[in-house]
Amino acid sequence: MKNFDYQTPTRLIFGRDVVAGLPEVMRPFGRRILLTYGGGSIKRIGLYDRVKELLKDFEIFELGGIEPNPKYSTSVVEGVRICKEQQIDVILSVGGGSVLDCSKAIAGGAKYDGETWDLIIGKAPTLAALPIVDILTLAATGSEYDAGGVISRTETNDKVAYIDPHLFPACSFLDPTYTFTVNAKHTAAGVADAINHVMEQYFTHASNSVADGFCETLVKTLMKYAPIALEKPDDYEARAEIMYACTFGCNGLLALGTGGSPWPMHGIEHALSGYYDITHGEGLAIITPHWMRHVLNERTQERIVKFGVNVFGLAADQAPSEIAEQTIARTAQFFKSLGMPMTLREVGIDDSRLEEMAHHIAVNEGLDAPGTFAPLNEQDILSILKAAL
Amino acid sequence: MKNFDYQTPTRLIFGRDVVAGLPEVMRPFGRRILLTYGGGSIKRIGLYDRVKELLKDFEIFELGGIEPNPKYSTSVVEGVRICKEQQIDVILSVGGGSVLDCSKAIAGGAKYDGETWDLIIGKAPTLAALPIVDILTLAATGSEYDAGGVISRTETNDKVAYIDPHLFPACSFLDPTYTFTVNAKHTAAGVADAINHVMEQYFTHASNSVADGFCETLVKTLMKYAPIALEKPDDYEARAEIMYACTFGCNGLLALGTGGSPWPMHGIEHALSGYYDITHGEGLAIITPHWMRHVLNERTQERIVKFGVNVFGLAADQAPSEIAEQTIARTAQFFKSLGMPMTLREVGIDDSRLEEMAHHIAVNEGLDAPGTFAPLNEQDILSILKAAL
Repeated sequence: MKNFDYQTPTRLIFGRDVVAGLPEVMRPFGRRILLTYGGGSIKRIGLYDRVKELLKDFEIFELGGIEPNPKYSTSVVEGVRICKEQQIDVILSVGGGSVLDCSKAIAGGAKYDGETWDLIIGKAPTLAALPIVDILTLAATGSEYDAGGVISRTETNDKVAYIDPHLFPACSFLDPTYTFTVNAKHTAAGVADAINHVMEQYFTHASNSVADGFCETLVKTLMKYAPIALEKPDDYEARAEIMYACTFGCNGLLALGTGGSPWPMHGIEHALSGYYDITHGEGLAIITPHWMRHVLNERTQERIVKFGVNVFGLAADQAPSEIAEQTIARTAQFFKSLGMPMTLREVGIDDSRLEEMAHHIAVNEGLDAPGTFAPLNEQDILSILKAAL
Repeated sequence: MKNFDYQTPTRLIFGRDVVAGLPEVMRPFGRRILLTYGGGSIKRIGLYDRVKELLKDFEIFELGGIEPNPKYSTSVVEGVRICKEQQIDVILSVGGGSVLDCSKAIAGGAKYDGETWDLIIGKAPTLAALPIVDILTLAATGSEYDAGGVISRTETNDKVAYIDPHLFPACSFLDPTYTFTVNAKHTAAGVADAINHVMEQYFTHASNSVADGFCETLVKTLMKYAPIALEKPDDYEARAEIMYACTFGCNGLLALGTGGSPWPMHGIEHALSGYYDITHGEGLAIITPHWMRHVLNERTQERIVKFGVNVFGLAADQAPSEIAEQTIARTAQFFKSLGMPMTLREVGIDDSRLEEMAHHIAVNEGLDAPGTFAPLNEQDILSILKAAL
């Protein structure tokens, strides 16, 4: 087992109507709140009004309209401006992972005198951040329990992970009923994102018994409950299991002692949604089986077999190469069974910029690090993109 | 899934020689340290000298000789006195769960004007505590990642769990090499304690897929690596897996969404070690199979079967009653295979005080709560004790 240093201080308040406790959680942080949200779904489900009513004794400023794949030049810059001008005490993020990721970048920028982008790309250190509380309305990214956010800069096709311990939410409210109205497309994409988070951490050469069992548990849980949630969107248990399982995606718990991974599938997908603004979870579902097939070799086969046996229950007494093939096929079948797109063309990506993206990924994502599960150079990345076309 | 509210802010620094980072971790808390430890094993393994050398720029006060099943009237009272008189800034606990549990009670008492026992039994609220850092030398209790400690008061045969969020260690250093010298008896007792922590949380009527998978993972990990650590005490991977798995025993992670349990086996064992000062993990190993057999009925059978199938790999196509019997037998066999005592007589407990203990447990431990997995009244408790004789 490799050495590790781990801490996740976020408080999780989970379940039906837990948001009733919001004022008590907000009060210690101060009276001036920046309320951040997305395209308005929180208004349709009544959550916006509920929050305003609960916080009627606070002074609330608003930043709505935060986009999926949140944009630096609009949302982040605007949020930082409001925080500084209005002397905001605390950010309340109400929405999915994109709103929360954007709020984290705002929280860092609000406590920094220079350009927030310098924090995001690590050119300047993050020495402080505004406290963040969130109410989650989409189960997917795990941002509610981690210290990172992904921010896009459209001008440069950049999609950058901004990670710093100051960015852990102080408290995350997780009420599965808020995800009842998430449509099939985004329910599936959220599950695919969460499964991919686990797979990114599972596929290493230095895992351990605890990490493996936790990872397999989460993937099995997500695969069991996703079809139920699609069939019956207001099934509380299914939505609750999915929301709970997603929580552990990105805070490092699943990689403790394993030495981690460069997250190759996310590295590739970040270019897809950076260039084409596609839904992140759909990009991952498309890439995942092709990444598995590309990296399958004598050295990686054992882990892929283990995944197949322990997650899909494949018979362990077959030839390993056969089990590995079945594992890849079953992974693809699962995403297909959720009604997800399985090719880049289906999400509007043609072959015109594959080389450009492969180059961008190779330069920016560090996927060729020696000693990792399956180092990828520019040619490897291009092969995966072409196979996924 | 039931609602929950969860937070574990402790930082875990795990691995070989991580203690080198001790000064950096201690510095923000202040210069005046109370160093707590037990019977001297930390001197034999060189850890005491290492810590003193690392902290030569700090002012160190000492409380050594803390006993297993740490005692209120000696260790806790003395520690609180030192903290108050010497204006201690931070406690550094070096040892196993008993030293750390004692340190937590001292940390609470040091910030309280009245009698520390009132905090422990909840008569007065814990409003503050000194920060605690620990270096763990025994894998067992999970105290390094939870907010509780168990304190004994010999005069009254009380053994009380003192739990408060202020008692989370700020940082726990977990170096598996410090457990290389733990003898077979205490290695086995530690593993039995940790397995029992998981079982206390697994056996509920309202579990969920994530909690079940996490629990099964930890029990399987502990059962796999305990025999290896006994066979080869300096096997790093085995010691590391055990130490890591033990960490999750008591911080609530394994019971999220399940509604929890009154921890009946711990409730019973606390009286055994409260009256007879036996080794906690040995008491649990003796009680566990007899508790399982006593509570086995139509309502509980399903969970016991699930444990047997998923942990021991028992064939699921047998009659459930048969699987349940095998599960209980395999649990007992496992503890026996570690060389543990399997009867109360083996640890010096005869039938003279069974009734008195059963009454004490029934009055103090709240094991008869309706709606729990298998409520136990005084007669049930006595039956289990007699069966374990």
